[in-house]
Amino acid sequence: MADSSAVDALIEALRRLPGVGVKSASRMAFHLLQHDRDAMQRIARALQEAAAEVRHCERCNTFTEAPVCSVCLDARRDATKLCVVETPADQAALERTGAFRGYYFVLMGKLSPLDGIGPKDIGISKLFERALDGAVSEVILATNFTAEGEATAHVIGEALRQRGLTVTRLARGVPAGSELEYVDLGTIAHALVDRR
Amino acid sequence: MADSSAVDALIEALRRLPGVGVKSASRMAFHLLQHDRDAMQRIARALQEAAAEVRHCERCNTFTEAPVCSVCLDARRDATKLCVVETPADQAALERTGAFRGYYFVLMGKLSPLDGIGPKDIGISKLFERALDGAVSEVILATNFTAEGEATAHVIGEALRQRGLTVTRLARGVPAGSELEYVDLGTIAHALVDRR
Ligand SMILES: [Zn+2]
Ligand SMILES: [Zn+2]
Repeated sequence: MADSSAVDALIEALRRLPGVGVKSASRMAFHLLQHDRDAMQRIARALQEAAAEVRHCERCNTFTEAPVCSVCLDARRDATKLCVVETPADQAALERTGAFRGYYFVLMGKLSPLDGIGPKDIGISKLFERALDGAVSEVILATNFTAEGEATAHVIGEALRQRGLTVTRLARGVPAGSELEYVDLGTIAHALVDRR
Repeated sequence: MADSSAVDALIEALRRLPGVGVKSASRMAFHLLQHDRDAMQRIARALQEAAAEVRHCERCNTFTEAPVCSVCLDARRDATKLCVVETPADQAALERTGAFRGYYFVLMGKLSPLDGIGPKDIGISKLFERALDGAVSEVILATNFTAEGEATAHVIGEALRQRGLTVTRLARGVPAGSELEYVDLGTIAHALVDRR
């Protein structure tokens, strides 16, 4: 497109980013070349360092640079509780609440049969190994409340109950601070069913 | 967010891409680390090579790896005609029509007073030097038919007319509000023939 194979190669490479088509990739390449060459070096170094350093925690599967992450190394947590989340961002949200002091397992995805993502593509066998370590007695399923997150929770929950563990799910309900009048009916219905 | 400063640094770096906020950057980082480490190396190398190799053509201002680009070096073109475009993508669209055989000048932007982008921020003084080389007799303004592209064409056109050049604009065969890169070739070809 430009008189430069390096520009074309950059546009092609940026298209490997999720959600970035040829139009976005061109806009990104032109912007960086025209206005922000520092960012090009910074992004390149960050990609190379992350690719070289980041691995999965042996216990919880999250991204970490050590064999075992700092949460899993925190001996003051309650080893009987294991909370299952889809991503590190979900784990971070739960940590910010301060309401959970057990350990986590990060699936790094969710079951999505339509996209060909089955149990082997997310960390389910590693989760079973972790959950059956003898110390865990309750597994709290905190996958998202989407169709795929619910399906993932269902599959994991059934398997772990068969293996003798207590399995719970985050409560569905009315978000804190909201007025019933403006909450969708499905949410109100769930909150009624899950009333405490 | 993850238990890894390398992941956090990668998310911060990806936010330097235009149109990418923290949520998109996290999604990109997690996707690459989980599913596409090859792409991380490829994007990093493409960024470094482009940052090192890509400069502006001395004559037309487009991106190139040589001092002067291949279009400017093509001696069979009509040196009396100079077509002004905003981006290399716009130039590529005009070239694909086969309807223009003169030379180009690539502004690498457009005037945008609301964003603080004035004549000094795009290649306007370099354009004046190029257009007043003695060979050019007609400057064809092919900036986009957006408010900013029209304003850019107006400012450039007035200045070049005062310096004695014939200044034309692509005909209004191009639908108002559209970007040249995405206009069908026949429309662009007609607009070139009917330039006013
Ligand atoms: Zn861990
Ligand atoms: Zn050139």
